[in-house]
Amino acid sequence: MAAYNELSKEELLELKNDLETQFKEVKAQNLKLDMSRGKPSTEQLNLSMGMMDVLKSDSDLVCEEGVDCRNYGVLDGIKEAKQLLADMMEVPKDNIVIFGNSSLNIMYDTIARSMTHGVMGSTPWCKLDKVKFLCPVPGYDRHFAITEYFGIEMINVPMTPTGPDMDIVEKLVSSDPAIKGIWCVPKYSNPQGITYSDETVHRFAKLNPAAEDFRIFWDNAYGIHHLYEDKQDYLLEILMECKKEGHPDMVYKFASTSKISFPGSGIGAIAASDANLADIRKQMKIQTIGHDKLNQLRHARYFKDIHGMVQHMKKHADIMRPKFDIVLETLEKELGGLEIGSWMAPRGGYFISFDAMEGCAKAIVAKAKEAGLIMTNAGATFPYGKDPKDSNIRIAPSYPTVEELKVAAKIFVLSVKLVSIDKILEQK
Amino acid sequence: MAAYNELSKEELLELKNDLETQFKEVKAQNLKLDMSRGKPSTEQLNLSMGMMDVLKSDSDLVCEEGVDCRNYGVLDGIKEAKQLLADMMEVPKDNIVIFGNSSLNIMYDTIARSMTHGVMGSTPWCKLDKVKFLCPVPGYDRHFAITEYFGIEMINVPMTPTGPDMDIVEKLVSSDPAIKGIWCVPKYSNPQGITYSDETVHRFAKLNPAAEDFRIFWDNAYGIHHLYEDKQDYLLEILMECKKEGHPDMVYKFASTSKISFPGSGIGAIAASDANLADIRKQMKIQTIGHDKLNQLRHARYFKDIHGMVQHMKKHADIMRPKFDIVLETLEKELGGLEIGSWMAPRGGYFISFDAMEGCAKAIVAKAKEAGLIMTNAGATFPYGKDPKDSNIRIAPSYPTVEELKVAAKIFVLSVKLVSIDKILEQK
Repeated sequence: MAAYNELSKEELLELKNDLETQFKEVKAQNLKLDMSRGKPSTEQLNLSMGMMDVLKSDSDLVCEEGVDCRNYGVLDGIKEAKQLLADMMEVPKDNIVIFGNSSLNIMYDTIARSMTHGVMGSTPWCKLDKVKFLCPVPGYDRHFAITEYFGIEMINVPMTPTGPDMDIVEKLVSSDPAIKGIWCVPKYSNPQGITYSDETVHRFAKLNPAAEDFRIFWDNAYGIHHLYEDKQDYLLEILMECKKEGHPDMVYKFASTSKISFPGSGIGAIAASDANLADIRKQMKIQTIGHDKLNQLRHARYFKDIHGMVQHMKKHADIMRPKFDIVLETLEKELGGLEIGSWMAPRGGYFISFDAMEGCAKAIVAKAKEAGLIMTNAGATFPYGKDPKDSNIRIAPSYPTVEELKVAAKIFVLSVKLVSIDKILEQK
Repeated sequence: MAAYNELSKEELLELKNDLETQFKEVKAQNLKLDMSRGKPSTEQLNLSMGMMDVLKSDSDLVCEEGVDCRNYGVLDGIKEAKQLLADMMEVPKDNIVIFGNSSLNIMYDTIARSMTHGVMGSTPWCKLDKVKFLCPVPGYDRHFAITEYFGIEMINVPMTPTGPDMDIVEKLVSSDPAIKGIWCVPKYSNPQGITYSDETVHRFAKLNPAAEDFRIFWDNAYGIHHLYEDKQDYLLEILMECKKEGHPDMVYKFASTSKISFPGSGIGAIAASDANLADIRKQMKIQTIGHDKLNQLRHARYFKDIHGMVQHMKKHADIMRPKFDIVLETLEKELGGLEIGSWMAPRGGYFISFDAMEGCAKAIVAKAKEAGLIMTNAGATFPYGKDPKDSNIRIAPSYPTVEELKVAAKIFVLSVKLVSIDKILEQK
């Protein structure tokens, strides 16, 4: 089909008329559809139900340290959970600390600690006039919410197909000592599904920050969350790369089992250098007597080892793949060639990122809502909720069923078409 | 027996000789005993083993809100867990927020948030020249560790048999705007086992703080942790008392099920006024997507309601009571009338507090260690680990068996006697 902006005004009006009829029909169905959140489906949750039977009243609840997991003790994670998550995060098990059920909480705590106590002896950030973070965009709204909550100024860095624009990152990080960190989702990124290239990771490891307490916040949330057996992305391991470049302390790596076992009841972890972990443990021993070891034991015994976890993730992929496929097929079929939007086909993760024509994202999300389809708020993928081009929309296909997604994807493309036509007509 | 300081030098030396023989005998046994930590015994943990079978792979895991507890959702606690912990904490269920497995972590977070964001709109504490906390002594070392970690100046307030010396508390709180809080364990206090009297609670509720962001940190850790059926302490409910006095926002109340279900895997909660909770939720929604709802559900279904929990606590009491009895009997029998130490018989909680002659606590703990008995470090019950009189020793009888406690208590009194004799001889 021809690009919309090559159509005449009359053709566009006629097309609009036809699309509006379709839109009215779907609206009349009073649907309730939701593509707003990266939430596993019930079918996915059911994959891990065996976990509920791993620990019973007659189970031995002693972990490898010889500690009764029901009682106090073992501050930073039981050995078997450390081994499992270390393998998942591709780091030595001595470079990992296990926390509670949420890696977001670890990231929050990391920023909070830096605010009040600095980083490995540096000036507490709350004592500084200005603290800044680099934010590759589009990105994850909850990252941006943390830095916003602490009054940290956020600077947008555009994403490219190989990761953040490293020319900009290098220039800013090496020149401005107020820049203390950068938020990264390096694999199957939220929302674009981009995996940082080897060169990008190398350039990260080689950064020469103006601030001694600059840290890369490497949220590897989707490290083993592939969609395909045969097409998988590979990401260089950042801790090792930083170590090789003589910057062992420059990175914190985060991950959790939220989208492997249960989102509400997984286990989260941080991986970092010995020196960083020593700094973290200093706080941790004040903050808690230790996290839930029974849940750690439950995870370790259920998955057994990283191989078990990888096998488990194939079952997730089998559920997720058709959902991504239906959305991507619909986008391709309905919007291909129209030049009113662009997207990438990710090989893993939880999202598809859609870039509409400038100034159209909010209107598209509103239009979809009219027909009963909830999308992530336009702007959510940018700091302060402000997409300067009002263009990016995050599509989360995980939670609805395939049947629901067929309809949802149709409503979405209809909304894109209608809003885009109006936009083009405005300009004609 | 006569008081030691009434004995002649010769009598004391003879006595010492005899005690040293006894000490050598016990030392020769190479014992390994530990009365240092308020840690439930294995027998107590076994009481809750049924909890491991409550949620199985065929269980309905939907909570009262209609939310699947395995997935994301429900920020501040599922309804049934809120009801259970609200009843446990004697507050309305709307005045409670459920957190993770540790109330200590909630207290830490509360202080951390006050440092970076202030309290209900007040100036962040990190922006102030000086922040001070009142610390009733002896008290809980982990409270003091939090305030020390944040550089908060701690001011000792002596405990009396009815709670902190309220004359001092009132005077300081009403005159010094740098005083932002006071640590309280109001029932079966750590370590003395004191329950604040009605008058003390009233005087707390009537405080007129110089600082608008002054808060009472009311750690009701042992609210239902009685030792006896017939002798129980009652504590006025502080939230209601503060509300009556027109100070609804002046208190945070903390509790957890750590010493009810499992220390490592319980659930913790904060209770406070609507306005305080709104302030807390503002942070919470940035910090986490929610805590472990499956564990909340597990607790709610296992205990069913507060009556179930109270019945459960009677089983704990049956295990704890003989342990307290053996220690108290030994103290009474071996030290009664000697005037070399004093203690109180608590009706609940986890500790017995022993006050040795001035300048003797460290030496007693060291002496006990010689014979293989680990006690809590002398000084631990005071801010900065400094007991100005070097007198207080915390005894934790929960973890060892009754048989072990018989020996441990003997070693302890032997150590007290030997160190005290040396002290008295010095002075003669």
